[in-house]
Amino acid sequence: MNNFEFYNPVRILFGKGQIASIPAHLPDGCKVLWLYGSGSIKKNGVYEQVKEILEGFDWIEFSGVRPNPMYEDLMPAVKLAREKCIDFILATGGGSVIDAAKFIAAAAPYTGEDPWELLSDQVEVKQAIPIGTVLTLPATGSEMNWNSVISRESTGQKLPFRSHLIMPRFSVLDPEVTFSLPKHQLANGVIDTYVHVMEQYLTYPVHAWVQDRFAESLLQLLKEIGPKIVHAEEPDYDRRANLMWAATQALNSNLSMGVVTDWATHWIGHELTILYGLDHAVTLAIVLPGLMRYVREMRQERMLQYAENILGIHTLDTQTSIEEAIWQTEQFFQSLDVPTKLSDYGIGREAIEKIEDNMRRRGLEYISQAKDLTVNDINAILQPQL
Amino acid sequence: MNNFEFYNPVRILFGKGQIASIPAHLPDGCKVLWLYGSGSIKKNGVYEQVKEILEGFDWIEFSGVRPNPMYEDLMPAVKLAREKCIDFILATGGGSVIDAAKFIAAAAPYTGEDPWELLSDQVEVKQAIPIGTVLTLPATGSEMNWNSVISRESTGQKLPFRSHLIMPRFSVLDPEVTFSLPKHQLANGVIDTYVHVMEQYLTYPVHAWVQDRFAESLLQLLKEIGPKIVHAEEPDYDRRANLMWAATQALNSNLSMGVVTDWATHWIGHELTILYGLDHAVTLAIVLPGLMRYVREMRQERMLQYAENILGIHTLDTQTSIEEAIWQTEQFFQSLDVPTKLSDYGIGREAIEKIEDNMRRRGLEYISQAKDLTVNDINAILQPQL
Repeated sequence: MNNFEFYNPVRILFGKGQIASIPAHLPDGCKVLWLYGSGSIKKNGVYEQVKEILEGFDWIEFSGVRPNPMYEDLMPAVKLAREKCIDFILATGGGSVIDAAKFIAAAAPYTGEDPWELLSDQVEVKQAIPIGTVLTLPATGSEMNWNSVISRESTGQKLPFRSHLIMPRFSVLDPEVTFSLPKHQLANGVIDTYVHVMEQYLTYPVHAWVQDRFAESLLQLLKEIGPKIVHAEEPDYDRRANLMWAATQALNSNLSMGVVTDWATHWIGHELTILYGLDHAVTLAIVLPGLMRYVREMRQERMLQYAENILGIHTLDTQTSIEEAIWQTEQFFQSLDVPTKLSDYGIGREAIEKIEDNMRRRGLEYISQAKDLTVNDINAILQPQL
Repeated sequence: MNNFEFYNPVRILFGKGQIASIPAHLPDGCKVLWLYGSGSIKKNGVYEQVKEILEGFDWIEFSGVRPNPMYEDLMPAVKLAREKCIDFILATGGGSVIDAAKFIAAAAPYTGEDPWELLSDQVEVKQAIPIGTVLTLPATGSEMNWNSVISRESTGQKLPFRSHLIMPRFSVLDPEVTFSLPKHQLANGVIDTYVHVMEQYLTYPVHAWVQDRFAESLLQLLKEIGPKIVHAEEPDYDRRANLMWAATQALNSNLSMGVVTDWATHWIGHELTILYGLDHAVTLAIVLPGLMRYVREMRQERMLQYAENILGIHTLDTQTSIEEAIWQTEQFFQSLDVPTKLSDYGIGREAIEKIEDNMRRRGLEYISQAKDLTVNDINAILQPQL
């Protein structure tokens, strides 16, 4: 097991009706900026519930945060937070709204020239407005971590930044608010969670058996409940609750501690989103099978462990097992009605060159934290997914 | 899955040489009370390492904390902390030293008559001196939770108290400092961890599949590495690292969230310790098999899940599977050279009455958080362990 530092002070308020417990966790007399997206919270009951608990607080709302939140859209909220001396941000939505809140939280008190430097130059966050969240879409794990990913329309970039200061003070996870989610968003949530775990698992074994088994627990569970959740006629509370908690656990640092992580699928996926507007999880479903084919030799030990422990594949031949594991993984994504080839989305081989160019322009060399993949490998990774 | 609130802000500094990173996490100019036990830290290198990093800080030491720390022993440390205006406590040791630090931390600023009220009357902790820990014995999980258990010699009590304010600011987990542990302490650590998980697992299923699988992950791992760790000629870093991290994960609230917990084995075990001075883990190894026999009917579903998923027992008959599971669990403890009968420790049936009396005197009725066991059941639980 490698050395690690773990720190996650996010308070989770999990279960039915937990929005009602928010006031106890808001600072006395704070001025709240309430952030949300396109208005889906008016369909799932969150809007009414939050409006009720904010009674007595001084609050303003800022809505219209889009998926893959854009710097250009968020700067007016930064201006607003500064003008109104906002001292708490309440984000109600999925990972995009929460990531947006994290950016606004760090950008408003930023004293440099342009808050974009927090991403482009990875300037250290020195101060941030405290955040609370009500999660409506289990997927990104942003509700319990220190990451945020923001896009910039004018430059065609999608970049991450991180700080302990932007971790939510609390996050409400009420599985019932996911009941109104459309099927494709549920499928996205399952895939996003699955790939988050894979990015922290499918690399190289370092004898971190606790983390390995926790990762395998989540993968096995998602394989089991994912299709049932996506294809059910009626929502089932316990399945939704377990998906929600699994999505949070998949990216709250518990799995990444002391192991070798990857994130190449995410890096390539981010480029596909910025170029073609594909849903984040859809890009992961496209890239991961290609990546698995490409790393099957160098990450053979882990590939085989995945085949055996998650998919129950036991053949006499290593290569046959691995081939079957890759095929089953791609089938799993497809079984959630998410196609896994670029051509399924009308995208051709020109995408590969564009992605490589974008990355090279930003001076990227390695695209995996394990340092076993570079920009030069992208062509081979995406070829089978054309 | 039941509703829950999760909050665990303890920073974990895990791995080789992590004691060196402590100064970055000590408040500037703080006055440190350095707490330790009988001097084993002078054998495992911790004493020298800590002394080095405390250079430049204003510190005093208080040593001699015994296993199952006693109120009477700790009150002089409380007095010292008050007199010297201590504003940070550094605990280096196992769960006993850490639990002692938590008591001193809450007792020193306590404004009531007697800090024992924090335990006897469960008075809410309003203030506490911040704590940091260097764990030397993986077992109790105290390094990453809000619990503390303190005994009182004069009254024959062993009582818990809890508060978010006594959670360590940081805990150093360096597996190498466990290399000098004697065999029986390693066995105790494995058993303590195993039973912590069982107390949160072997009750009633509530469809909390994430938590179930995490619990099963730790049980399976302990079954696998426990005997190897205890009987190895030479310490193996990775095995020790995984035991250490498993022990922390077993009791950092991750497993207990949203499920039905028990703790009857601990309640009965505490009485055995206070009456006969048995090691905490030894009492758990005695009580758990008896408890399993007693709850085999009412907790049948979970017993069977344990038999199948942890021990790989698949028979055609439920009762045969459960009987085998209980037998194997008792064998597992014995395989770590820890006998599981009261008579192995020279204790007879008089113990049962004494335990019942002690509990009744304190007005206890239920001895399980699941509320399915009362003081009246203790006789039946302990009979097979005579």
